[in-house]
Amino acid sequence: MLLIDFQGEDSVSQKNERTNKMIGKQSIEFGKPVWIQGSASIVGKKEGQGPLGGLFDKVSTDDMFGASTWEEAESALQKETVQLCLEKNNISIDDIRYMFAGDLLGQSIASSFGLSEYNTPLFGLYGACSTSALSITLGSITIAAGAADKVMCVTSSHFASAEKEFRYPLEYGSQRPLSASWTVIGSGAFLLSDSKNGNDRAMITAVTPGRIVDFGLKDSMNMGACMAPAAADVIYNHLKDFNRRPDYYDKIITGDLGYVGQQAVIDLLGQKEIDISAQHMDCGIEIFDQATQDTHAGGSGCGCAASVLSAYLLKQLEDKKWKRILFVPTGALLSKVSFNEGNSVPGIAHAVVLEAVR
Amino acid sequence: MLLIDFQGEDSVSQKNERTNKMIGKQSIEFGKPVWIQGSASIVGKKEGQGPLGGLFDKVSTDDMFGASTWEEAESALQKETVQLCLEKNNISIDDIRYMFAGDLLGQSIASSFGLSEYNTPLFGLYGACSTSALSITLGSITIAAGAADKVMCVTSSHFASAEKEFRYPLEYGSQRPLSASWTVIGSGAFLLSDSKNGNDRAMITAVTPGRIVDFGLKDSMNMGACMAPAAADVIYNHLKDFNRRPDYYDKIITGDLGYVGQQAVIDLLGQKEIDISAQHMDCGIEIFDQATQDTHAGGSGCGCAASVLSAYLLKQLEDKKWKRILFVPTGALLSKVSFNEGNSVPGIAHAVVLEAVR
Repeated sequence: MLLIDFQGEDSVSQKNERTNKMIGKQSIEFGKPVWIQGSASIVGKKEGQGPLGGLFDKVSTDDMFGASTWEEAESALQKETVQLCLEKNNISIDDIRYMFAGDLLGQSIASSFGLSEYNTPLFGLYGACSTSALSITLGSITIAAGAADKVMCVTSSHFASAEKEFRYPLEYGSQRPLSASWTVIGSGAFLLSDSKNGNDRAMITAVTPGRIVDFGLKDSMNMGACMAPAAADVIYNHLKDFNRRPDYYDKIITGDLGYVGQQAVIDLLGQKEIDISAQHMDCGIEIFDQATQDTHAGGSGCGCAASVLSAYLLKQLEDKKWKRILFVPTGALLSKVSFNEGNSVPGIAHAVVLEAVR
Repeated sequence: MLLIDFQGEDSVSQKNERTNKMIGKQSIEFGKPVWIQGSASIVGKKEGQGPLGGLFDKVSTDDMFGASTWEEAESALQKETVQLCLEKNNISIDDIRYMFAGDLLGQSIASSFGLSEYNTPLFGLYGACSTSALSITLGSITIAAGAADKVMCVTSSHFASAEKEFRYPLEYGSQRPLSASWTVIGSGAFLLSDSKNGNDRAMITAVTPGRIVDFGLKDSMNMGACMAPAAADVIYNHLKDFNRRPDYYDKIITGDLGYVGQQAVIDLLGQKEIDISAQHMDCGIEIFDQATQDTHAGGSGCGCAASVLSAYLLKQLEDKKWKRILFVPTGALLSKVSFNEGNSVPGIAHAVVLEAVR
């Protein structure tokens, strides 16, 4: 047996200048910002026809993304979005130390099959539609620990693979109630870095990981109502942990509560005498035009918050139209098995503080 | 609107004494050890009859754990294991800042429904049977970042929910080939802490997060072969990153490669002139008696590596029978959808360095 030749650096990084802080009950403030060096978004045809259509990096004309199944289509979408993020930032996959990824499908197969060719160590995540925040939160913590210099956080969703996974195959032509949301065909990839490069899109300065909140709702066609209590919980605890008022933020932006969930989260926080109505915005409401696109309660899916963050929210921070925002993607923790067994749809949400580069 | 009363500590933790290091290509060395303050394991009847039966904290006589479906049984098992871990360590759930959890089921419902009542912020993970290492890795990084003082890492698997999820309902009475493994009914929960309390079970000193490796194998009845390439890859890269030889460790312990996968991982590393045959051990081989328990290739599932780590491996470190081990749970990234669509079964594995308390 040969002794392996040692080629790496023994100590690539010395991060003892950082002093990350636990804040209050469940928040973390980073001693040094984590930089969003770049990002990319790719969406499907319908999303391209929506109000934000001109802002996405790429609108695909082929919702199959060249693949032969819906699941493989989503994998291809995720893979392509990572590639685009690398190209836009002129860096190689070898510069990415770890990936943080997940999606809505059982056993996260969109990510597993989409990312395997990159040969990058992977942290697989599951937070339903809150996964973009989950990946950015854990990616940031890892960088803030001095345990990585650059990481890629990516997530995706696809209307057809999600309908098949959670509700009915499209071929059934099932009717959708007005409370139902429309799963976005989209992916967002984010390149996080431990150092400023002068051209960064935004800074991550704090995070508040969220709890599961289960109000016992059982309607898989009304995800907004199922997720709103978790969104309200994490927003409330974030504000409490940091002793901040809603107007500390230019915007408080949930992932995919849609019209039904938006009213619910405003009402729930109102009961605690916190009024976020002036700041609240929802990616699911922004991405489609309800009047003309027949998308009912709004857009949803991991790819909704992720693609809107990359295309629209980060642009507002870059253009200094906003100084800081609280980004709160929301997830509905159901499966077809738990749903068919009569269980509720618990919600979860994670909050990330994003600030314009100073 | 009232300004929220601020009750928390503004800065609970100051961790600037830590200097975590990126090592080589994909490893992390913690500047200060992360302490496994305690752990708990609960298993099913068959596991209790195996060679390690006397070591588990609790052997359930009811594989339904008081629930009415297999999925709810697994949730009850996971919940109970966390509770037992809290009780054994005489701490309250309020002392746990974050949970890191996942399981094998679609959308990780065993964890979502098992842990929701704890009201603790949750990082949902998916790494198939590698999830115990994934949870311990991310829990350790979060503590090493100074972003948490105490976290709970938990995972589970259940024979009946897993067979239903991945293969055939038990009622079909399908025959199982000799290469098939037997999913363990079991759960392991680990209490990680940023400080020594004098009674700790072990120290986590380094981690090597792994990559997806796909050799194109398509046999869901031979998970060992599907996962062995990923185990070999992460063990190789770990040894290379740290410039260590296999005999640096008393044991190199994979999660659930079983008999088929054990031979494969030894052969694959042998091709790179690394001989781990003297150190290799596999939780899936240890947990059942192949001769009398009809478990074919060995035990598998998230709960296999997790329960064996808690009951057996940590005990050897505690008793100073071993000085340090490399713990390498392995996951097979399949789903019934990807399998039925003719896709391969990619593998992933993550490595954690565990040392006896000095």
